[in-house]
Order: sequence, then C-alpha cells, then structure tokens
Amino acid sequence: MSLRASPLPLAISIGDPAGVGPELICEAWSRREAEHLPPFFAVGGAETLAEAGRSRGMVPPLTALDHPAQVRDAFASALPVIGDLRGGYHPGQPDENGARLALESLKLATDLVVRGDAAGLVTGPIAKAELARIGFAHPGQTEFVAEACGVAAEGAVMMLAGPTLRTVPMTVHCALAEVPGRLSVDLIVARARIVAQALQRDFGIARPRLAIAGLNPHAGEQGRMGREEIEIIQPAVAQLRAEGIDATGPHPADTLFAPHKRAGYDVAIAMYHDQALVPLKTLDFDQGVNVTLGLPIIRTSPDHGTAFDIAGKGIARADAMIAAIRMAGACAARRAAARQQA
Amino acid sequence: MSLRASPLPLAISIGDPAGVGPELICEAWSRREAEHLPPFFAVGGAETLAEAGRSRGMVPPLTALDHPAQVRDAFASALPVIGDLRGGYHPGQPDENGARLALESLKLATDLVVRGDAAGLVTGPIAKAELARIGFAHPGQTEFVAEACGVAAEGAVMMLAGPTLRTVPMTVHCALAEVPGRLSVDLIVARARIVAQALQRDFGIARPRLAIAGLNPHAGEQGRMGREEIEIIQPAVAQLRAEGIDATGPHPADTLFAPHKRAGYDVAIAMYHDQALVPLKTLDFDQGVNVTLGLPIIRTSPDHGTAFDIAGKGIARADAMIAAIRMAGACAARRAAARQQA
Repeated sequence: MSLRASPLPLAISIGDPAGVGPELICEAWSRREAEHLPPFFAVGGAETLAEAGRSRGMVPPLTALDHPAQVRDAFASALPVIGDLRGGYHPGQPDENGARLALESLKLATDLVVRGDAAGLVTGPIAKAELARIGFAHPGQTEFVAEACGVAAEGAVMMLAGPTLRTVPMTVHCALAEVPGRLSVDLIVARARIVAQALQRDFGIARPRLAIAGLNPHAGEQGRMGREEIEIIQPAVAQLRAEGIDATGPHPADTLFAPHKRAGYDVAIAMYHDQALVPLKTLDFDQGVNVTLGLPIIRTSPDHGTAFDIAGKGIARADAMIAAIRMAGACAARRAAARQQA
Repeated sequence: MSLRASPLPLAISIGDPAGVGPELICEAWSRREAEHLPPFFAVGGAETLAEAGRSRGMVPPLTALDHPAQVRDAFASALPVIGDLRGGYHPGQPDENGARLALESLKLATDLVVRGDAAGLVTGPIAKAELARIGFAHPGQTEFVAEACGVAAEGAVMMLAGPTLRTVPMTVHCALAEVPGRLSVDLIVARARIVAQALQRDFGIARPRLAIAGLNPHAGEQGRMGREEIEIIQPAVAQLRAEGIDATGPHPADTLFAPHKRAGYDVAIAMYHDQALVPLKTLDFDQGVNVTLGLPIIRTSPDHGTAFDIAGKGIARADAMIAAIRMAGACAARRAAARQQA
C-alpha cells in the first residue's frame, strides 16, 4: 500500500522551555525536506522557539497561524505556531513559568488532536518534578493524554520503537521488587491485545509477531528459577494464541534481543522497564520513539528527557524528535487511508 | 608492555561430546595462525575430536602427548590431545557415557592447570542436567573449578566479556523476585574488589573503572522507585571509593550500555543476570567469553551452551571459543610477565 500523507498536520507540544524540546522542533523543521517530514506545527511558545533556534545558529522563520488547516500551505517556508502562549527562554533553568508554558502547550496540542483538527500529537519532553510543583496531578504526559481521550490509564500502552527494535514493557515505573507481584495473565493479555491491534492499524503489519519475554533468568528453566513463566506468562501466551494473535514465548530475555532473534518478531513484550529499555537504548540510543498505543488518537514522543544540562548548547541530537514526527506522520497516513477505504 | 606468550600451553576440556565443544576446538585449532592463538591442547576425547572435526569437513591431525611441555613443539602441525579418555561421537544425542567423558575431561584439565602444568583452563560447554544425572553435585563448572582451587564458591566471580562490553552480574541464577533480598553492601564490595583486582592483574588495566548499575528503573529516582540504591548500592560505591577503587554509580541501567556510556568504564557491574546478559548478548552475541575472576588460575569459557540442536551440522560459530582461548592466553601472558618481573 502506498501511503499519501494525511491531509491534516501534526501538533507538537514544545515541552519544558528550559529543556531541549524547543530547539529540536526548530532543528526538525529545518531538516523537513531532507528528512521527508510531514507538515507539523508547534503549539505556543513563539518567542521561546525563536530564541531556541538561534541557540543552534538558526533563525527559523516562524508564522503564527489561527488554525491547523492553514499549516499545509505555510509549512514549506516557515515553522507554523498555533496558540498565543508566551514565555521566555532560559535553557537549563527550569522554573514554574516554564512549567506552566509546557502544560498549556500540552493541553492545547492535545485538544487540537482530540477534536480532529490535527492528525496526531508529538509531545516535547517535560520535567515531571516541575509540573508536579504547579499542580499537575498525572504521573506523566501519557496519563494526561489518555484521560483527555477518555481512556483509562491502564488502557494506554507505551511502546518504545527504534530503527532496529520495538519493545513494550508490561510494568514501567515501579521498584524491581514490585514487578513479580504486578504481573498477571489479564495484564499481559490486555496489553498484548492493544499492541497487536495497534501494530495492525497504525504500523501496517498484517499479522504482528509478538515475542513475549520471560521474567526470570533463562525464562525460569521450567520453574527452577521462578514460577512466573509457568503460572502467568505461559497461560497469557496460550490465551493470546487462542485469540488468533501470533504470540510466542516466554523467551529467555538474554538472547531475545540478539540480531538473529530480532528478525523473528515485530515487537518484544518485556516484563519490566529495564528489560525493555536496556536493549532499546543499547541499540538505538539516539533514535528511540515513545509511542502510546490504545488511544483513539496518535501520540508519539522522542524517548529522551529535557536534557537540561545540554539545552541551548547546540549539541542535542534531533534524531529522536525527527523519528517521532516521522512515525506519527506514517501512523496518521495509515489511519487516513483506512478511513478513505471504509 | 609488550607481552610474550606464556611458555606453557592452555588446557581445553572438550565439554559434552554430543554438543558443539569438540568441533569448535578443532575449528579453533585449524584457525590457530589466522587468529594468532596461543598453543593449547584438548584434554581427552581423541576419537570424538576426530569425528567432530570431520563433521565440519576437516581432517584435523591429532597427536596424543604425555605432558603439556610437549605441546609447544607439536601445536603447529597437529592438535595435541592429552589424556586417554575415550568416547564416541553422537552429536545432538547426549547420554551418560558422554557426560562421564565431559566430567573426566574437566577434572583432568583442571588438575593440569592447578598443578601448574598448563597456563590456563578453557572449558567447553557441558549440559548441567546430564552431569547431575551421573552425580555431579556442583551447580556448574565454575563452582567445580573454584573448589578444585580451594576457593569458596562466592569467591569466584563470573565476568562476561565481549569485544565491546565487560559486565559482571552480582546475582546470577535465581528468580528475579529473589534478587533484591540477595543484594548487600558486603556482597557488592567483595565482588567488585575481586573484579578490580582481576582487571589489574589479568587484563592489564592499571586503574579499572567500575560502573555500578542501579537495581530499579532510573536507579530508583532518589528512592521514589525502590530504596536499594540508597541503602545498598550507594554505600557500596562509597566504600569501594574509600578503598581507592574507581567505582561510580548507581547508574540508571537503561542508558548504561549505550555507546557513549560504555566509553566511560572498563566493566559494568550489574545487579542481576539479565541486566548483564541482555546487553552483552545484544551487542556481542557470538563472541561472549565467560571469565572466572577470583581464582588462583585463569579460566575462561565460551559464553554459550552445548547447542545440541546444531552440533555436528558444521554451522556452529567458533567465535566465542576462539575469543575464550585468546583471552586465556593473554591473561596467562600477563601473569607470566608479572612473575618474571617479580
């Protein structure tokens, strides 16, 4: 299937203005042709974006627009900005004003996508601690976006995707000691179903192959080193297969990410944060994209933080931001094509 | 320091004769010149080695010798075999006779190294389940070798080393749920000391840099996701530094194995099996070497199993066996040079 770009542009929230988000948006715009990026606009923060661009030696022309429908025509000659959200530029020095700008940008960008005026959402990196200080009650942007979409937090599934690996952790931000107790057949089945559906719908994989990792060394060696494989993971794999999903496992995690193994699946389902993130960042450090699956909208994000320590220094790499924009555009094009066929 | 080879050869136990060990020893010998391998001899199993070589289309000339001192002269023209240990060749079909041959080869090889007749020990892969069936009471070869050296099992530390990464797990073959309870300041300090000493003595690194991983996601984020970093790992790092060891951490594990991070340390100290093995096998799948640190002798092993499914088919890669032989030879040369200087 040859895909035409979605007719709507992508909305990008600028992230914390003291972090690398604004400068990476400028950098991505400046490389829009070489990288074949779909049209996008930044949400708010025009002054911040202008100064962040200058910190990288660019003078990106900005154009303030009223509506995303104007973006397609303007995108070739200027970085479109929608939303009159103001703030300065103090790279590496996060404060409450910056956190407010980041939150307003996130809210407006999400709103534009949820109401169908933009094709997908790309979120710039925020600082959770700063946001918490101004009353942001969600653990992270993903939970905020899920709620805005009317999806329960557990229905939003984080996938990390790089050029050589896609991986989904079943548990994320909890102590390692809590991981075994959080795993269940229902959890794995529910999340793996969301993954399989999203890879079909948004990634164009007709019959996604899910390789499900074990929890214990050597996947437990038939129960000699832990029984989670026998009691939880094997039954989950069996249930998924009974539903027609091409799930295999539990696979020993240590060999699962070697090149010849990676060729055998479309996504690795990991049991905990570092089981997914260690191989991803080992293989695709600068290019990882965080994709939220299970939402009615498309949402991606570069898989890195605000990087306050290097913000404004012109050295932050834009690979992940560019990859997040490209991935959101490709997913949006698939959904648009599916709608046309329907 | 330019190193001359140790005057003594290396002893290689053949491993399970139904596995890939024997054929990889033949392959390594056939590539001795191209790979610049130090002289070595196989311990027992002459018939097995001959047939295993033929399974790869080689007819390796074998020469039965009485003593390792004869190996250096013979090595150029034939694969030396010491020890009249007999057995057939039934690739992919392990049995008790094969397990007995593997065990006798391991015992004799270890004995030759312990008594100083060989410069180091390289062990071929064995099948633990087969050995257990004939009464082998040790969890693995490492524990057997440690006991033969008079070292308590906890004094022998497994390091995995590939071309791009060295890593040492603090806990190994236990369920993931047991890992937090097994970690302690004493355990980490004792093992990290052994690692630092071995990297100095056997790997020629004057001041080894040890990067110690956290246990929890993002190294716990100041206790928000687990307290092992605060209560166990930070105090261990502090104690090691107080002893003059260049230890850093706890480092978030997810980014620790990215290329720019790996450039900053000589060994990564991991808290559990897969935290060490996932990055190693992701990066250096075919070339990983298992080195036992903390012993009075040198012992390496290819970091793969018997691979019964591909034994005798001529497709098993010898990279790890060759790397294990080369590493043992280099370590032996460093010890020999140190003895000459002393």
